[in-house]
Amino acid sequence: MQSGFSTKRVIIGPDGFKKVVDIASPNKVGLPNGQIDSTELAEIKPGNSFEIKDTVYYVLNCDTYDYVMHYLKRKTQVVYPKEGAYILMRLDVFPGKRVGEAGTGSGAFTLCLSRAVGPQGQVYTYEQREDFYKLAEKNLKNFLEFDNVIMYNKSIEEGIQERDLDAFFLDVREPWEVIQIVREALKPAGHLGIIVPTTNQVSQTLISLEKNSFYISEVVEIMMRKYKLVPERLRPKDLMVGHTGYLIFARKLGE
Amino acid sequence: MQSGFSTKRVIIGPDGFKKVVDIASPNKVGLPNGQIDSTELAEIKPGNSFEIKDTVYYVLNCDTYDYVMHYLKRKTQVVYPKEGAYILMRLDVFPGKRVGEAGTGSGAFTLCLSRAVGPQGQVYTYEQREDFYKLAEKNLKNFLEFDNVIMYNKSIEEGIQERDLDAFFLDVREPWEVIQIVREALKPAGHLGIIVPTTNQVSQTLISLEKNSFYISEVVEIMMRKYKLVPERLRPKDLMVGHTGYLIFARKLGE
Amino acid sequence: MQSGFSTKRVIIGPDGFKKVVDIASPNKVGLPNGQIDSTELAEIKPGNSFEIKDTVYYVLNCDTYDYVMHYLKRKTQVVYPKEGAYILMRLDVFPGKRVGEAGTGSGAFTLCLSRAVGPQGQVYTYEQREDFYKLAEKNLKNFLEFDNVIMYNKSIEEGIQERDLDAFFLDVREPWEVIQIVREALKPAGHLGIIVPTTNQVSQTLISLEKNSFYISEVVEIMMRKYKLVPERLRPKDLMVGHTGYLIFARKLGE
Amino acid sequence: MQSGFSTKRVIIGPDGFKKVVDIASPNKVGLPNGQIDSTELAEIKPGNSFEIKDTVYYVLNCDTYDYVMHYLKRKTQVVYPKEGAYILMRLDVFPGKRVGEAGTGSGAFTLCLSRAVGPQGQVYTYEQREDFYKLAEKNLKNFLEFDNVIMYNKSIEEGIQERDLDAFFLDVREPWEVIQIVREALKPAGHLGIIVPTTNQVSQTLISLEKNSFYISEVVEIMMRKYKLVPERLRPKDLMVGHTGYLIFARKLGE
Repeated sequence: MQSGFSTKRVIIGPDGFKKVVDIASPNKVGLPNGQIDSTELAEIKPGNSFEIKDTVYYVLNCDTYDYVMHYLKRKTQVVYPKEGAYILMRLDVFPGKRVGEAGTGSGAFTLCLSRAVGPQGQVYTYEQREDFYKLAEKNLKNFLEFDNVIMYNKSIEEGIQERDLDAFFLDVREPWEVIQIVREALKPAGHLGIIVPTTNQVSQTLISLEKNSFYISEVVEIMMRKYKLVPERLRPKDLMVGHTGYLIFARKLGE
Repeated sequence: MQSGFSTKRVIIGPDGFKKVVDIASPNKVGLPNGQIDSTELAEIKPGNSFEIKDTVYYVLNCDTYDYVMHYLKRKTQVVYPKEGAYILMRLDVFPGKRVGEAGTGSGAFTLCLSRAVGPQGQVYTYEQREDFYKLAEKNLKNFLEFDNVIMYNKSIEEGIQERDLDAFFLDVREPWEVIQIVREALKPAGHLGIIVPTTNQVSQTLISLEKNSFYISEVVEIMMRKYKLVPERLRPKDLMVGHTGYLIFARKLGE
Repeated sequence: MQSGFSTKRVIIGPDGFKKVVDIASPNKVGLPNGQIDSTELAEIKPGNSFEIKDTVYYVLNCDTYDYVMHYLKRKTQVVYPKEGAYILMRLDVFPGKRVGEAGTGSGAFTLCLSRAVGPQGQVYTYEQREDFYKLAEKNLKNFLEFDNVIMYNKSIEEGIQERDLDAFFLDVREPWEVIQIVREALKPAGHLGIIVPTTNQVSQTLISLEKNSFYISEVVEIMMRKYKLVPERLRPKDLMVGHTGYLIFARKLGE
Repeated sequence: MQSGFSTKRVIIGPDGFKKVVDIASPNKVGLPNGQIDSTELAEIKPGNSFEIKDTVYYVLNCDTYDYVMHYLKRKTQVVYPKEGAYILMRLDVFPGKRVGEAGTGSGAFTLCLSRAVGPQGQVYTYEQREDFYKLAEKNLKNFLEFDNVIMYNKSIEEGIQERDLDAFFLDVREPWEVIQIVREALKPAGHLGIIVPTTNQVSQTLISLEKNSFYISEVVEIMMRKYKLVPERLRPKDLMVGHTGYLIFARKLGE
C-alpha cells in the first residue's frame, strides 16, 4: 500500500502561495491565477514546475511539516513543529523506542512520533473523546509510513496498558491528575514531556511531579521569529506567534 | 560492541548539580559533597539513588541531549538541541533517509542525524579541518548506536561524492560558495538547511539560493526561555541565550 | 484654549471594547450594544460608568498612549509607545531639553517629545513630504499641552537650522545620508537616536556613525509580550508584534 | 547648588570599557591601561578625548541611563530603564504630574519619576525599610535636578498621605495587600502601575485589582535584545536578560 505522503503535492506560487494537494483523487485545483487538474499535476515530477496563464508554479512532494501545517484536519490545538521537534529531542525519541501519548488530539504529534521511532519502534496513543479519536484515525490512516501506532479511544485515567515505555507525552487539560498513572507505564529513568498553555497549570504540574518522584529537567517556552525573505531588506515579519504552550520535561525516579 | 550511551550515567544532585560520567573507565567521581567510585556507580540502576554524607544523588542513563550539552568535547560552536531538533523536523529527517552535512564540527549534530535516520538510513559528513575531523571521530566513536555515518576529512568545495540525497545541512562560514555543489548532491525537491550567525550572511545566502534555483521555505530564529522550577514562584530565569544562529530552509527546484 | 486631551474620552466596554471619542463635537457614538450621544458622554466624569441596554461602559480620560494607539490618524508607520518610551529614556529627554526630530511622520513621537520636554523645553521637527506635514499638524494641533513645537515642512538634507541640541531622533529611510548634518546640530556629547526596520540599514548606519565620529552606545530591539487578563488561566496572547524596528543610539564625539 | 549630574563623567574606552566617574571628589581613576586624575578629567569638555599610553578615551557627561546602570549604588533589584521607560509612558507621567511610588528601593525609578514630572510636578515615595530608605536618600541627594521628591520612611500599609494623585507605581512583594490603600490616594481614572517577578503574583494581583474596581489595561513583559556593534557581521549578543518582571497597568474606576 502506498503511503499518503506519496500522493500529496505541495504547490508553490507567487506571493507566498502554498497549497497541499491530493493527486490520488481526481479534482480541479484552484490557483491564484487559474486552475490545474490533479491528474495533470500527478504527471509533474516533484521539483519541477508548470505554467498557467504566464504564472509559474513549482511542485514539491509533501513533508511532515507541510502535512501538519497545511493539510491535516484539526478540531484541536495541535502540537506545532517548533514544539514537536524539541519534544522529540528532549524525550530522546529515536528509532526503536516505545513511546506513549495522551491525548491523541488531531494526531499531528502522533504522526511525528511514528516517523521518529520508525519500523522497529512503537507508539501507543490514548484519546478519550470519540470525535477526536475518529478525526485522528482519519488523519493518520495511510499517512503512517510505518505500521507502528496503536490507538485507544479511552482516557488514560482508566489506566495505561503498556509498561516499561521509554517516554510518554502528555497533552491533557489536567496533567497533574494522571502523573501517577503515567509513572507506572514508564521504565525507570523514563522520559516524560508535558505541554500546557497556562502558568497556573505549570505550577500545578510541577507540584504533582515532585510528589510523584520525578526529576524535573526543564520548563521552557520556545519562541520562533520568522524573517521576510528579502536579502536587501532583511527584517523579521511584523507578526509572530506569541505563545503556544509551556513545555515541561521530567524523568522518572525510583522503580 | 556496546554503545557509549550504555556506559554513561547522569548524576543529579542538589542545587541543580548535573554531571555526565563514564562508568566504563574506573575513576573517582567528584561530587558537591564528597565522591563516588565509578565502579560503585555502575551497580546503581538508572532511576535509583545513592547517598553520600547525607546528600542524595540520583542516577539516570544518558540521553542525546545530555550527551551533547554536558559530555561531548567541543572545539567549535555546536548546533544546540533547540536548533538541532527543528532542523531535523524541517529537513524531514526520519528513519531510512540519506542525508549529508558539512562541516562536521565537533560532531554534535552528526550524532543527531545518525540517531534520526536509524539503521536503514545513512549520514555523510564532511569536515575540512583535520583537528575537527579527529575530534568529531572521537566524539562519535562508540556513541553511534547505528553503523550509518561516513566521515570525510575534506571540504565539500572539492565536491560531494553522493547523489540524490534526501537532505543536506550546511554549517560553514560561507555557504553561498557551495550552494551549487550541494545542489548537485540533492535529489529533486530535496531539503537544504543552513545555519549562519550573522544577518549579513543570511542576506548573502538568500541571494545565492535564488540564483541556484532553490525555493526558500523559511528564515527563522529560535529563542528558548527557561523557567525556574519553583511552582509557587514561577518565573523565567534571569538570563537566556540571546542568539545562536539564523536558520535558513530551502528546497531544490528543477532536476 | 483647552487641550485636545481634555475633550477626549476613552470608552471601555465588555470583551476588550475600547474607543476614543471626541466629546467636543456633537455626534452619536456607536457601541457594541447601542449608542450614546457625545453630549451625554461629556456629563460623565472620568472613572465613572454608564449603562446602555444592560451593558456597563466605563469612561476614562484619554492619555498619550491611548491617543497614539487608538485615535491619532496615521499615513505612516508610527513610532509605537514601546519603542517611543525607550527612545525618550535613552536620549535623556526630560523637562527643559531642546530636541530635534526628522521626519515628523504622523506626529506620534513628536507629541511624546513635546510632553517630555515640557513648557521649558523645545522640539524642532522636520518633515519633507507635504501630506505628512499637514497630517501631523492636524494630529498635533490643540493636542499639544505645551507650546513648544516648531514644525518645518522640509527635509533636513537642506540643513538643520538649530544648533547645540541636546538630542536628535531620526526616523528616515536613509539615515546614513544625514548623519553629518545632524552632527552639526547637536551639542558636544549630544544624544542621537535612530530607528530603522531592516538589518541592512542597521549595518549601513553603523558605518556612517563611525565615520562621523559618533560613539555608538547600543543597537537594540524591543519585544513586548502581552498576557491575557485571566488570573486563573494566565498565559501570553497567541499573537504578538514580531518586529517594528531596530533602535540605534549614539553620542556625538568631538566639537 | 549643582546637580550631581553636572559633576559626573562617563569615560569610554576600547573593548566596550565604560566607567562613570565623580570629578568633584579628587581621586585617581583606574583605566584598562593606566589612570587619570579626576581633576585633570574635570578639564576635559564632554565629547572630547584624552590619551593614556597610546590608548584614546572619550569623555561624556552622564545621563539618567548611565547613572542608573553604572553608578547608582543598589541593595535591591532596581527597575531597569527598559521597564522604567515604558512605565513612565503607560502611567502618562509628564511634566506637572503628581505621582506616588512604593517602595522606593534604591531610588532608581524615583529619579526617573522626578525627572519626568519636572519642576512643576511632585513625587511622593514610600519605603518601609530604613536601610533602603537611607540608601535611596544618598543615591538621590544632589542628583535630583528638581526639588520635587518627598520621601517617607514608612510602609504604605500605614496609609498614603496624599490624595488625587495622577499615578502610582507599586514595586512591593505583595501588591494585592495594598491595592485598596493605593486606590484611595488616586484621583478618579488615575493610573496604577505594578511590577512583580512571578506569574503567581500576577494572578493574585489581577484578582485584587478586579475586586477593587480597577480597569486592567495590560499585563506585559518587555524583552530587549542587544546587538553586537559590528556592521559587517551584525548579530545579537550571545546572552540577553531573560526576565526582570511582569508589568501590570490599571486605572481606577469610580470615585
